[in-house]
Amino acid sequence: MTQDPLVVFTPSGKRGRFPAGTPVLTAARQLGVDLDSVCGGRGICSKCQVSPGYGEFSKHGVTAREGALSDWNAVEERYDEKRGLAPGRRLGCQAQIQGDIVIDVPPESQVHRQVVRKEASTREMVMDPAVRPYYVEVAEPDMHTPTGDLERLAEALKEQWGIGSVTAGISVLRHLQPVLRKGKWTCTVVLHKGHQDEDHRILSIAPGFDETRLYGLAVDLGSTTIAAHLTDLRNGTVVATSGAMNPQIRFGEDLMSRVSYSMMNPGGDLAMTAAVRTAINALTDTLAAEANIQTDQIMEAVFVCNPVMHHLLLGIDPVELGQAPFALATSKSVSLHLADLDLTSMNPAARVFILPCIAGHVGADAAAVALSEAPDQQDELTLVVDVGTNAEILLGDKRKVLACSSPTGPAFEGAQISSGQRAAPGAIERIEIDPVTKEPRFQIIGCSLWSDDPAFDAAIGKTGVTGICGSGIIEAVAEMRMAGLLDSKGLIGGPTQTGTERCFAEGRTHSYLLYDGTETGGPRIAITQGDIRAIQLAKSALYAGSRLLMDEMGTDTVDRVVLAGAFGAHISPKHAMVLGMIPDVPLDKVVSAGNAAGTGARMALCSVAARASIEKTVREIVKIETAIAPRFQEHFVNASAIPHAADPFPILRSTVPLPDVDYNTQGDSGGGRRRRRRA
Amino acid sequence: MTQDPLVVFTPSGKRGRFPAGTPVLTAARQLGVDLDSVCGGRGICSKCQVSPGYGEFSKHGVTAREGALSDWNAVEERYDEKRGLAPGRRLGCQAQIQGDIVIDVPPESQVHRQVVRKEASTREMVMDPAVRPYYVEVAEPDMHTPTGDLERLAEALKEQWGIGSVTAGISVLRHLQPVLRKGKWTCTVVLHKGHQDEDHRILSIAPGFDETRLYGLAVDLGSTTIAAHLTDLRNGTVVATSGAMNPQIRFGEDLMSRVSYSMMNPGGDLAMTAAVRTAINALTDTLAAEANIQTDQIMEAVFVCNPVMHHLLLGIDPVELGQAPFALATSKSVSLHLADLDLTSMNPAARVFILPCIAGHVGADAAAVALSEAPDQQDELTLVVDVGTNAEILLGDKRKVLACSSPTGPAFEGAQISSGQRAAPGAIERIEIDPVTKEPRFQIIGCSLWSDDPAFDAAIGKTGVTGICGSGIIEAVAEMRMAGLLDSKGLIGGPTQTGTERCFAEGRTHSYLLYDGTETGGPRIAITQGDIRAIQLAKSALYAGSRLLMDEMGTDTVDRVVLAGAFGAHISPKHAMVLGMIPDVPLDKVVSAGNAAGTGARMALCSVAARASIEKTVREIVKIETAIAPRFQEHFVNASAIPHAADPFPILRSTVPLPDVDYNTQGDSGGGRRRRRRA
Repeated sequence: MTQDPLVVFTPSGKRGRFPAGTPVLTAARQLGVDLDSVCGGRGICSKCQVSPGYGEFSKHGVTAREGALSDWNAVEERYDEKRGLAPGRRLGCQAQIQGDIVIDVPPESQVHRQVVRKEASTREMVMDPAVRPYYVEVAEPDMHTPTGDLERLAEALKEQWGIGSVTAGISVLRHLQPVLRKGKWTCTVVLHKGHQDEDHRILSIAPGFDETRLYGLAVDLGSTTIAAHLTDLRNGTVVATSGAMNPQIRFGEDLMSRVSYSMMNPGGDLAMTAAVRTAINALTDTLAAEANIQTDQIMEAVFVCNPVMHHLLLGIDPVELGQAPFALATSKSVSLHLADLDLTSMNPAARVFILPCIAGHVGADAAAVALSEAPDQQDELTLVVDVGTNAEILLGDKRKVLACSSPTGPAFEGAQISSGQRAAPGAIERIEIDPVTKEPRFQIIGCSLWSDDPAFDAAIGKTGVTGICGSGIIEAVAEMRMAGLLDSKGLIGGPTQTGTERCFAEGRTHSYLLYDGTETGGPRIAITQGDIRAIQLAKSALYAGSRLLMDEMGTDTVDRVVLAGAFGAHISPKHAMVLGMIPDVPLDKVVSAGNAAGTGARMALCSVAARASIEKTVREIVKIETAIAPRFQEHFVNASAIPHAADPFPILRSTVPLPDVDYNTQGDSGGGRRRRRRA
Repeated sequence: MTQDPLVVFTPSGKRGRFPAGTPVLTAARQLGVDLDSVCGGRGICSKCQVSPGYGEFSKHGVTAREGALSDWNAVEERYDEKRGLAPGRRLGCQAQIQGDIVIDVPPESQVHRQVVRKEASTREMVMDPAVRPYYVEVAEPDMHTPTGDLERLAEALKEQWGIGSVTAGISVLRHLQPVLRKGKWTCTVVLHKGHQDEDHRILSIAPGFDETRLYGLAVDLGSTTIAAHLTDLRNGTVVATSGAMNPQIRFGEDLMSRVSYSMMNPGGDLAMTAAVRTAINALTDTLAAEANIQTDQIMEAVFVCNPVMHHLLLGIDPVELGQAPFALATSKSVSLHLADLDLTSMNPAARVFILPCIAGHVGADAAAVALSEAPDQQDELTLVVDVGTNAEILLGDKRKVLACSSPTGPAFEGAQISSGQRAAPGAIERIEIDPVTKEPRFQIIGCSLWSDDPAFDAAIGKTGVTGICGSGIIEAVAEMRMAGLLDSKGLIGGPTQTGTERCFAEGRTHSYLLYDGTETGGPRIAITQGDIRAIQLAKSALYAGSRLLMDEMGTDTVDRVVLAGAFGAHISPKHAMVLGMIPDVPLDKVVSAGNAAGTGARMALCSVAARASIEKTVREIVKIETAIAPRFQEHFVNASAIPHAADPFPILRSTVPLPDVDYNTQGDSGGGRRRRRRA
């Protein structure tokens, strides 16, 4: 008796023997090989393409001869004529096994293909979206067993896709009968899988095999900006990204001022809710236009946001979040119909998923950061800092994860800074101050030249120098500290003390002149003592929060710092550490995670498993409330110094100069003293 | 060691020993005694009232002495002052067991109290509504374990009521925080229990202990009339019943004409959907006003209806129901939000439940009849006939149940009858024809006197005699047949043939003059040959359907006939049988079930278990489609005779005269022959 042919699938290496005539797709399914199919093996969808390999495969112990697969059949011929089948490709549902063979499953034929997030990260994401299309063939009605069309559709989904139980809303029910008849008892249904053993829900139904691409929206709804990624739900590709200002800003710059607005103005919460929903609708329209898709193709939206944004998005008055004990209306993830939020620029059947909140001050955005950065899976003790108007801080490793938030205020975003501005062309974002001459040079957004380059003025002609953005102010303050223009308490020295006329008196304090464009009609950009104070307050809050978590973890040091947030992507680790924003670690242990909250939103959009995982992680995270932590105030005061009044920062001090100056005088006119301590 | 006190509960007879100091409610719960409580034993709701019995109870072997229960405590004193506690009553959650005692649980303290449906029936219904209020005490928020208010509420429901998992929609979420704070962390939530292991859904939430009564609506949505019962969800009491014409009548009298309307007029289905929903809203307002409740107190509506009404209620085009294979969009029960149906006159959070359909012609109304009459639980082979514009027929016993529908048309409802009218005051509903004189006498709706009573004319003064209703026409035709005025083929004899001038010629046929009110300005009411033909068509369709099911069951006889439907309640079994509407059974085996569909709707409203039960029964019912049954036409033709051309009706013939006359002539003028066969 001869053995059945041996089939080896790559890259999985899974192998087995199958009777001659077995379709490749069937063999793949029986072996658990990840080979896609939307039409269930009917030669319609072409998702099951494979690349057979012929010849000697000593690694696999297989010799694949000509004829190891059946010849092209009519289905493949027709498909090739219509769409073109790449050379060497076969349709897995049509090609039958005739002899030993090695079959490669290309990445695009893998359902659970992994989407590499980005080079900086080693973490990968497996596609497992909540929303997926399924092609089914439905039994025709029979007067002898008069079940409804919906029941026969459910039966088909069970038999053909193993889907246990489905529900359908009234809009699907209304379209079901004409669609099934138009499709001659075949249809493509879009199902939504809930995350807690819920039934699958039929979102829409189209006649026959419908190839319409489905998209999802991952939204990072911040207090200042709304960032949204339009994502292809088949492969996780971001097809368009756009951002908009959060229009709630007109009700209050920061979170607490919006909570106050709601408290002081009856219906104020509803006005803010309406404003943000309108903005989301507009942003969605923009994204769909940019990607050249219909808004009807958008079937799900995943939101991450801080608790106040979370409540205002849901239409819940955030008043309780403005006062102790900062009670959330709901902390678990929220799953809704699109219409529940008055969102309109998607498919009317679309679903909304909002990640869970960690605590009253630590929201779904922090949960998304936890999902993206996964401190709970790290061997190294990792501090994740998401810097925004409010900073969310996570500290942990495989043993446990702690979380808190700290009210940094908007200084890091350029607000409350005399020449501060949003990160936009013309804004100073990089600064160096010569430690000897005390002369600055800088770069602005939109130009790669430094300001001391002879071509600089010509290159920036159009935008000019307009102000200083968040990362720029951090570099400016840190550089001033390293150049000895600023003492550890945060005082700017006078011209005599510092030896440069760029330090000039403004009332009883001094400012440092960074740029004077007045001759050419531009601005005069200086770092004022007020700017320094604003940055000190912000960074003290940030550091004190981290320090509180370190106390709780029983440590004085961390192994690794991850800077999350759009701002974190632009910040210079060295300058941040000189400022004492983050604990003292080797600079190569400070990494930027980019918009980690947005990445977490995309992960949740693309994976039901990720949703379940973060729900579980969030329950396990130990929440620390800074507002009632007895040592927070002490940490805050100590952190006011640059870099710190108590913590030694030995690693930092070994790499950068931190001149031991003290400008605690009543001015610099005449008898200012300049004291040097031993380093 | 002395034994713990013995407690015997009546009427259940459950008994057990409990340590002295155990509250009666606790003992009842541990023994599984059905003792109500909404507040969970906190002395708030007073639902757990019991009547302790003192003295010798030899039956139970208990001697209950004074002091067998603790003295009244402050909670009972306060309750008695505020509300009054009936003599001998105690609050089960407050009274503690101190010695042997017999405790009676009065009916109103039983949660699962049985509601006797009506005297004619022995079946009872156990209260188990989908919608119930629960009082809970919710943990206050804690900054150290910052869960959301919803999560703490869910925890409280789990701990205090054993409710596993709850969901809340956006409107509940929006109110949750202020309600919990207003109620000082106590609240009453109204939960809806889905019927398929679904989570409980929070429909509404009120601060503290909220005693608002909750109501449900059981609606029998017929093609002609909509009947609705407003029902107290605590005890199943119908607090108001009202009916309205189905406004879809203006689009078509019967089902098929409405389906045609939809086919011929684009958007016609939507117009009919809007019309019926508007009517339901108005009817609900009427009921709420009649019962003096707020529409907000109505938390659920249960609908039963035929498939066309079912689809039009749901907003589904019924076109498929008008043509073979009569495919339903969905056959299972449907559970919806109120808003899905644009219904407005209830609590906005209310739910809608629609019973399952049996087949494309046998709807949720037939399912409700099956629930109410339960042929599947009978030892006797039972034929259930629901007579309306369309007749639904069930035949079965414990072994199996068959179902079909038959298109009787509206003749039985007085339509298509020359003097026909709706059952309303003035309509003739009872008729007797003297077999010798051939003179009729009758009763009209609204007057208990017969027309040959000297006081009749005076008694009916206000309404007069206006026409003849459905049950009247059946009696008239049957009486004419028994009096020999009508032959078995349905021909009315002429004056010479019948010996009465009341039989008068109209063209080439004859009519029988029932009432002549022309002298006093009233109508002239006659039974015409056309009326007889209309009734023959209707009754043939009805009988043929029953006969088809009997064929399928392999029987020529049934044991018992149940006449369901509002019309069935008024029909005279004898006359129906003379007409041959129903198979030949002893007259005492013909019972009227009243509005069995409406009763089924009420049962489903009051019991989640009944919903599950009928869903299962409907799946098991064998569906027979009359339209494709080969023998239906033969049965129809045979059933045209009065009572029947082939079936002998021996039981009927043994009790009533069925003169063997034949009026198959070309008229009665002069030489009409009157042939008598041997009986």
